[in-house]
Amino acid sequence: MLILMKLDAPRSDVERVKEKILSLGYATHEIPGEARIALGITGNRGKIDPELFLNLPGVLDAIPVTKPYKLASKDFKATKTTVPIGNESIGSNELTIIAGPCSVESRQQIIDTAGILKELGIKFLRGGAYKPRTSPYAFQGLKQEALQYLQDARTVTGLKIVTEVKDTETLPLVSECADVLQIGARNMQNYSLLEAVGAQSKPVLLKRGLSATIEEWLMAAEYILNGGNPNVILCERGIRTFETATRNTLDLNAVPIVKKLSHLPIIVDPSHGIGVWEGVIPMSLAAVAAGADGLMIEVHHNPETALSDGYQSLKPSKMKLLLEQLQQLAPIMNRTITR
Amino acid sequence: MLILMKLDAPRSDVERVKEKILSLGYATHEIPGEARIALGITGNRGKIDPELFLNLPGVLDAIPVTKPYKLASKDFKATKTTVPIGNESIGSNELTIIAGPCSVESRQQIIDTAGILKELGIKFLRGGAYKPRTSPYAFQGLKQEALQYLQDARTVTGLKIVTEVKDTETLPLVSECADVLQIGARNMQNYSLLEAVGAQSKPVLLKRGLSATIEEWLMAAEYILNGGNPNVILCERGIRTFETATRNTLDLNAVPIVKKLSHLPIIVDPSHGIGVWEGVIPMSLAAVAAGADGLMIEVHHNPETALSDGYQSLKPSKMKLLLEQLQQLAPIMNRTITR
Amino acid sequence: MLILMKLDAPRSDVERVKEKILSLGYATHEIPGEARIALGITGNRGKIDPELFLNLPGVLDAIPVTKPYKLASKDFKATKTTVPIGNESIGSNELTIIAGPCSVESRQQIIDTAGILKELGIKFLRGGAYKPRTSPYAFQGLKQEALQYLQDARTVTGLKIVTEVKDTETLPLVSECADVLQIGARNMQNYSLLEAVGAQSKPVLLKRGLSATIEEWLMAAEYILNGGNPNVILCERGIRTFETATRNTLDLNAVPIVKKLSHLPIIVDPSHGIGVWEGVIPMSLAAVAAGADGLMIEVHHNPETALSDGYQSLKPSKMKLLLEQLQQLAPIMNRTITR
Amino acid sequence: MLILMKLDAPRSDVERVKEKILSLGYATHEIPGEARIALGITGNRGKIDPELFLNLPGVLDAIPVTKPYKLASKDFKATKTTVPIGNESIGSNELTIIAGPCSVESRQQIIDTAGILKELGIKFLRGGAYKPRTSPYAFQGLKQEALQYLQDARTVTGLKIVTEVKDTETLPLVSECADVLQIGARNMQNYSLLEAVGAQSKPVLLKRGLSATIEEWLMAAEYILNGGNPNVILCERGIRTFETATRNTLDLNAVPIVKKLSHLPIIVDPSHGIGVWEGVIPMSLAAVAAGADGLMIEVHHNPETALSDGYQSLKPSKMKLLLEQLQQLAPIMNRTITR
Repeated sequence: MLILMKLDAPRSDVERVKEKILSLGYATHEIPGEARIALGITGNRGKIDPELFLNLPGVLDAIPVTKPYKLASKDFKATKTTVPIGNESIGSNELTIIAGPCSVESRQQIIDTAGILKELGIKFLRGGAYKPRTSPYAFQGLKQEALQYLQDARTVTGLKIVTEVKDTETLPLVSECADVLQIGARNMQNYSLLEAVGAQSKPVLLKRGLSATIEEWLMAAEYILNGGNPNVILCERGIRTFETATRNTLDLNAVPIVKKLSHLPIIVDPSHGIGVWEGVIPMSLAAVAAGADGLMIEVHHNPETALSDGYQSLKPSKMKLLLEQLQQLAPIMNRTITR
Repeated sequence: MLILMKLDAPRSDVERVKEKILSLGYATHEIPGEARIALGITGNRGKIDPELFLNLPGVLDAIPVTKPYKLASKDFKATKTTVPIGNESIGSNELTIIAGPCSVESRQQIIDTAGILKELGIKFLRGGAYKPRTSPYAFQGLKQEALQYLQDARTVTGLKIVTEVKDTETLPLVSECADVLQIGARNMQNYSLLEAVGAQSKPVLLKRGLSATIEEWLMAAEYILNGGNPNVILCERGIRTFETATRNTLDLNAVPIVKKLSHLPIIVDPSHGIGVWEGVIPMSLAAVAAGADGLMIEVHHNPETALSDGYQSLKPSKMKLLLEQLQQLAPIMNRTITR
Repeated sequence: MLILMKLDAPRSDVERVKEKILSLGYATHEIPGEARIALGITGNRGKIDPELFLNLPGVLDAIPVTKPYKLASKDFKATKTTVPIGNESIGSNELTIIAGPCSVESRQQIIDTAGILKELGIKFLRGGAYKPRTSPYAFQGLKQEALQYLQDARTVTGLKIVTEVKDTETLPLVSECADVLQIGARNMQNYSLLEAVGAQSKPVLLKRGLSATIEEWLMAAEYILNGGNPNVILCERGIRTFETATRNTLDLNAVPIVKKLSHLPIIVDPSHGIGVWEGVIPMSLAAVAAGADGLMIEVHHNPETALSDGYQSLKPSKMKLLLEQLQQLAPIMNRTITR
Repeated sequence: MLILMKLDAPRSDVERVKEKILSLGYATHEIPGEARIALGITGNRGKIDPELFLNLPGVLDAIPVTKPYKLASKDFKATKTTVPIGNESIGSNELTIIAGPCSVESRQQIIDTAGILKELGIKFLRGGAYKPRTSPYAFQGLKQEALQYLQDARTVTGLKIVTEVKDTETLPLVSECADVLQIGARNMQNYSLLEAVGAQSKPVLLKRGLSATIEEWLMAAEYILNGGNPNVILCERGIRTFETATRNTLDLNAVPIVKKLSHLPIIVDPSHGIGVWEGVIPMSLAAVAAGADGLMIEVHHNPETALSDGYQSLKPSKMKLLLEQLQQLAPIMNRTITR
């Protein structure tokens, strides 16, 4: 349920409605719009009777929200969300490019890579410290050591750090290092983790689950938003289908659909989405042409020796090529890409 | 198996190799390359011993082709195929735009629509005469009557006609009217129909089956090529997945993958691929950015009253908008789009 | 729309309702029930007003049928359909076992196999004459020759013949030989073929398409029923999913769901459903326990040399073992299995 | 890599091989077989050279294990694992029946339900205390309160308790109450949780993920086994496919495939697998006929008022009916079912 206040409703009217909501046992979120205030009601399991609010002073309308997500919905907040990250942001007209290796492999590797990316004009560095792996015997990341290296890379280059948090235990450590916390595809419905990142203030990049519908994905975002953290960035990274020629099926349909349903920014990870480096450039261009707010791309200075995901990583020279093409494409999409 | 001839091999050497192939009970296709001649061997079920050919005069190499498709493979023909359609072609640098209603609904409708599209600079008109429908009670197309209307539209506007052939019985009739024969997704593995369109000369637009892998799709193309018709255009139109927010999941990964594996042109149908008109423009741009050779788009002058697929059809005004955006995008992709 | 007649409605009332239906431009099917007559209306695209019939003499009720299929629906015919095939039938309490090789490979092979199966007490012989194959270079069946061998096998053993018809061209030939016409998974939405088998009188075994929903499958059956052929047997044979450990994912859920929605008999093909012979026995037992009316199983006297599907074929000795287990299971499921 | 020791190899030989393995930086697990000892090597990322072991005294063979899972593999342990749970066990010839409501809703509800189930002869009670839910606004379980009620139900009836643990934070609490810890489908690849349950001693029931391949599922089991907990029970509960007529597609193929690949017991949850109560009885019978070691079934004394999953829950009277049918089926499958 969404309560729309009249344009001239005094603050006391707003407060009275909030009290009413709380008295019914529900929670409420104030959504300051450009013109008017709206109050979202959450915590209700069944329908709420609009009559309960329509007669209160200052109330213009009470709109039942039929979508299962509310805070993530465009009905709730019509204007696009821009997530601030220091002096940068995600979700504005500026295309976001996040690049870097799958895993942090050594101090030298990540600092060198960050330097190369900085020279290319990139502002966000990705790099896995804690790696969720299908096999217990696979390389699981350098963990705490990698976090230190990422911080060193930031100190040296000024790049913002995007890194994955895989459980609540390591959240405090990862949160200290990261500028953006990444939730991986396999953890998209790890609700305890979603609640934990919702209860802290670092922005969250939420990858879509392998077999998550768009609605389930928005519901996962809702967990974070409902926890009090409004800074959620969605990341499409391919879904699981019957096709075996590609690692995943990059679902670019999700870009216009999410933009229709939600105010949250959406970026695309073509590296996992197609899983083979030759496909990364065309799918990056396609993602931006579909309307994505940015890209997350695996770049490795020497893909052949990468400890993970080398097969889908771009060399820096290919990344440069991609950036040149993106710079041509951006203005057509009413986007900027400063380097 | 692919037999590569030496650069200076005389014609008599080529003929001797061909005789050898035939004498072993296989078929052969000559592939004239820019520099050298190659001979493809088909009809074999198991492996062929390269030794059988390596000692023949004029033979440079005998390469086992491990992919199950051969004629569709890039190993077989390295240069991109351009399908000629009268004074137009598909697969060249010129982006192909095929537009029109899902079904031909009346003479007036199709002639008016063709006129509007011609004014927009479009060269290919689509329109269903025979409509395969999930329900026996749904509108199945105006059939033979519609074929006449399509021919009238061509006479009036000069647009090339793309229309679906749904069975071998109506192939002669449809073939007489169509410039390009469309094979629908549900018929992608109707092998009798594939053989029949392979045995005639009109170009064939082969839609990907709902749950066909890229390999199976190329195998379906192989049926047509093996029948003697080299003019096959592939059309990605979305696959079936668990996602229900969209009619299908448009698999744009297929564009770079097909271009890596095959010499055949590939176009994209975003109308079926996303299934809702608001998504057609972004997914059209995405398809071209991914490298597609063209688009097939449902356009209806009055989508609300369309007898089929109105929900996913663009109005002419939106089609115009899309063309303007494509004209900006084309040069970035090294494409032209003359109007 | 379904018109229920009163118990004591005279024939003249029934005829009057039929005339009314025809006068509205619809078709009608009379469904003789145990107690009362019902008249199904088909051919309507939109809703029909029940008021048009409720006032006619002899009419008890006019029930809108919301499912897109009608003739296949249990609302239309509450009692289970039994398909008669000479002195045998499918859909009765007797479990149907259809067995035999994927392809007819020689006269000797099929007659020998038929003899072995007859000794095991099996009544139905399967064997492919025309084989739809993914590759144009794969064995496509012995075609007309195989049809003759199947007839010979019937003459020698008395077994009923189940064989696939893959196009309308060969339908007359196949129909002459077969006791049951099989429509393969890839042809489930080949509507011209469905219409053709609907217009003739041999029973049709309709396999579920690789990615067909249960509703689409029942709609395909509807095409055949609507053509005038009431003898349709459904066959679940596995659907396409992301799982690669098995050839297909046998969807046994389909058995209770189809039995809830439709009166048509449903059998299961575990050979294609799991794709590996060790799994055929457990999945056969599972299918019968789920309520299937029968099984279709690939049996080859020498699977290692089979020209197709050897990997999923049972040897006769394993088939015997399975039959012994089925004979124990049948009474628990209120089924008989005479041998 | 698996090192097979000779039948008469003395203990000192075994120890020498173990030292060699550790000296190479790998871990080892001793697998006491009926006749001979085998040593599994884990922790290696690439291939290990068998030559390193073949010359050591007492070594019969060194077999590279190509499957990515080792401890879960039948190559590793040929005999079926039986998981002891107090005086009961899972994986023996006795069919395991786990029944109870989706969620613990009140002390009265769970104690009454336990009493009814005990009377039916059931030994295991399921009931959710912590409920992972798609929506943050849905009922999330009575949590710690529910754990107390479950313990009370055990005290009163003696039934063993199966309940879900959804994160590492609540693991100590849940572990104290549960006889079997359930890992839900959405947490199948929550590796931190898998490691945590691997490091404690309570048996773990591991549900298959919605879109997990059988191999990924066994890899998830491998995490638990590798942590030191050998007591893992697999639970097939349906996978996500395109079919919408059922909540999930119960993949009974998984039963024979898992039994071929692994020594771990496998049970089936038909309630989630089909998602509608009328289908639960047929799919339960099918699961047992496919070879499952047991069933997990949602039973609610009043499904209409259930706080979750009422639609797929059996009433106690239907559960009784199912048990009667299972008692007939069990002996055919060489199973017992004591009540």
